[in-house]
Amino acid sequence: MDHEAFRQHGHAMVDWLADYFRDLEQRRVVPEVRPGEIRAALPSAAPELGAPFETIFADFERQILPGMTHWGHPGWFAYFPSNGSPPSLLAEMLATGLGAQCMSWITSPAATELEQVVMAWLRDLLGLPTAFTGVIQDTASSSTLVACLTARDRMGDAASRMTAYCSREAHSSVAKAFRLAGIPADRVRVIAVDDTYAMLPEALEDALAADAAAGLVPGIVVATMGTTSSTACDPLRAIGELAQAVGAWYHVDAAYGGTAAICPEIRPLLDGVELADSVVTNPHKWLMTHFDCSAYYVRDVEALQKTFRTSPEYLRTAQDQEVANFRDWGIPLGRRFRALKLWFVLRSYGAEELRTLLRKHIALGHELASWVDAEPQWERMAPAPLGLVCLRHVPPELVGDEPALAAHNAALMARVNATGEVFLTHTLLDGRYAMRVAIGAWRTERRHVERVWGLLREAGET
Amino acid sequence: MDHEAFRQHGHAMVDWLADYFRDLEQRRVVPEVRPGEIRAALPSAAPELGAPFETIFADFERQILPGMTHWGHPGWFAYFPSNGSPPSLLAEMLATGLGAQCMSWITSPAATELEQVVMAWLRDLLGLPTAFTGVIQDTASSSTLVACLTARDRMGDAASRMTAYCSREAHSSVAKAFRLAGIPADRVRVIAVDDTYAMLPEALEDALAADAAAGLVPGIVVATMGTTSSTACDPLRAIGELAQAVGAWYHVDAAYGGTAAICPEIRPLLDGVELADSVVTNPHKWLMTHFDCSAYYVRDVEALQKTFRTSPEYLRTAQDQEVANFRDWGIPLGRRFRALKLWFVLRSYGAEELRTLLRKHIALGHELASWVDAEPQWERMAPAPLGLVCLRHVPPELVGDEPALAAHNAALMARVNATGEVFLTHTLLDGRYAMRVAIGAWRTERRHVERVWGLLREAGET
Repeated sequence: MDHEAFRQHGHAMVDWLADYFRDLEQRRVVPEVRPGEIRAALPSAAPELGAPFETIFADFERQILPGMTHWGHPGWFAYFPSNGSPPSLLAEMLATGLGAQCMSWITSPAATELEQVVMAWLRDLLGLPTAFTGVIQDTASSSTLVACLTARDRMGDAASRMTAYCSREAHSSVAKAFRLAGIPADRVRVIAVDDTYAMLPEALEDALAADAAAGLVPGIVVATMGTTSSTACDPLRAIGELAQAVGAWYHVDAAYGGTAAICPEIRPLLDGVELADSVVTNPHKWLMTHFDCSAYYVRDVEALQKTFRTSPEYLRTAQDQEVANFRDWGIPLGRRFRALKLWFVLRSYGAEELRTLLRKHIALGHELASWVDAEPQWERMAPAPLGLVCLRHVPPELVGDEPALAAHNAALMARVNATGEVFLTHTLLDGRYAMRVAIGAWRTERRHVERVWGLLREAGET
Repeated sequence: MDHEAFRQHGHAMVDWLADYFRDLEQRRVVPEVRPGEIRAALPSAAPELGAPFETIFADFERQILPGMTHWGHPGWFAYFPSNGSPPSLLAEMLATGLGAQCMSWITSPAATELEQVVMAWLRDLLGLPTAFTGVIQDTASSSTLVACLTARDRMGDAASRMTAYCSREAHSSVAKAFRLAGIPADRVRVIAVDDTYAMLPEALEDALAADAAAGLVPGIVVATMGTTSSTACDPLRAIGELAQAVGAWYHVDAAYGGTAAICPEIRPLLDGVELADSVVTNPHKWLMTHFDCSAYYVRDVEALQKTFRTSPEYLRTAQDQEVANFRDWGIPLGRRFRALKLWFVLRSYGAEELRTLLRKHIALGHELASWVDAEPQWERMAPAPLGLVCLRHVPPELVGDEPALAAHNAALMARVNATGEVFLTHTLLDGRYAMRVAIGAWRTERRHVERVWGLLREAGET
């Protein structure tokens, strides 16, 4: 395929995508496919001879598209949103076309420097101290692992007695990062939470004291701003003071909630973040930037580089002493040009329009919470400070019967999801089954929130 | 920006990209920019108000593009190639537009199953045994770390006595993976190489025996097919037999060279790969598929998942027992839909056209090697089995003076790169400075190889 053939197929692709966006709401959010069905329909061997692009694309429409889940659908209330806006898509087209691989400054000088610029822009928009330096990682999972590895290496020989701390509500990637960093389960402390699902600083204090008394060395404390189950916000200041007092690395996981701090009224939920050694927040969730784009901020860049730097002769360049070589700031050597999409998004919307969008989602969340609170047979199961509402249906005859309530709500959610109009997922809060309505897909309007609430109530009545 | 505005700007972007591809050869490969220059020209704060897309794109052309290194340029001879073909770009446009996040089967069933299908296609094209199961990782760095972590965890308590092995010529990501996996430097063995820069199995055997005698436990052996400095190929069978005999995990890093095994005549360089526990090769280097797309093959999927699986309630799905949830096959939770580009590439070209392309590069490499060999003042510094030729200029007056030869060749390479027509990088081979001419960018034709050789000889004569 030469450049003129690309031009032809590229125009067709743009039209297809524009139509897809226009008609997205008419599709099911989650497809009706059985495990193995798509795989079974595809050939078992690669073709020896090439096919015309029209044939391949027809097969995409016939065999792949019917099996796709549509994350951009306005009825997306599952997990957390993964927003990809048109300016972000244009940036991805451009960055991919340029084929830049941004491991070192010299391999794409503008990409490296634009990453420095947009990460500083975002830091300032979030109200983070200028002592933080940013780098784009793929995911919060990787960012948290990067924090754990840096914390571990900073300890030197004491790493063999390193302990790690997070709350019971911390994301599974935190426990995974501890494990991958080689911290055994018997040196990981899962700290209790209060009735808002936020970490109890007193419980952390006790755990730190007990470990110190036992000759162990607290190495890393991870707090969360906006937990996955319920968007609980740990008291970052109190936790940070405890971490600092024992010399532990303090990592704040604000993967979902953090970007909302572009709104000054949300910043109190991040109060104390300036005590952190590292912070992660994902523009690829709520901030209109396609996955993957995880913003990792770190105070001690030298400690970071000490853990991740390599300097074989074949990677050395004349500029190594004066530039950032981002290959030394994380796990992978190769890196895509991800700063471009964040730049296009920040410039296309401007901070004010992004704030307006996030405020709309948060207001819709509060509104849904108020509707739930007003219905006697429905229970809101956690505070809803951001866009997520946790709820369940409690018919009078099931009050107090937790296994029955779990089964009832799981079946209810399955019926709602089966409509294909919306997609919800669930969690457990204090052992109780809860449906999660995560409002934050950028195409979601008030009428979609009304609709999901209508579907839930209908399902509760049947 | 709504879908109609996207349509408009998308069409303009496609035309821009098609023109960019058409005119790519007229650009400098590496830009003439000084560190900090681009950063200094950009505003220090994000805008409060959005800008029209035309303004943003004009700023891209004015401020960013002049600072980009062009990896797709036909004069790209640096590092290894990172090929992005038009079908791959079309797939990336589509996958990005769909916004799929492929952490679990349910979050994109077709993406998960297509990944299973294309990874099996590629495995079979490479001649790898069907006992290998594939998963796409971002980079070989991450794939090798995944192998190390799996190997470590499989050892249980013996991990504290785990030793790790690779050759002196292994990629820096291997040593980095050992370090990140918590294997201290005093338990890492860097094995000597022969005069082709391939690992000496006898040296490995001695090291394994010495460690066993010292009460240590050999945990992982990493062999390379196609080293970064010179595309040396370790004797995979002999190394695999030694690794198996001591029960160590055997990982084969074929990041660059592996994909060439789609050509049967290259497969002898992978002889013995069937002894491996894991293999990595990168379609994003030579196989026309945009970065990132690293093919990781593993024999013991259960061991892999045991290390990387998480199963918090909020990620559980009804299908967990019958599907692959690729979130459990690596470090990040979130994953892009990367199988689509590999599918588009394999279907657009077909295996035969991909073989033809790789054979062209390999033949050009052999041809350049023969030209170097025929010139008395030029020295070819290593075998050139694939597309890479390592060479240096040896003027009679500098024979035997290694520091002077290094300075002379570094200056010579700087002059050649300063033309902007080509981009070369260097390495050290047995302590001697070598220029690397890596032939493999898909737009590179015979005339570009003639040109780089002409530029080198001209620079040698001045």
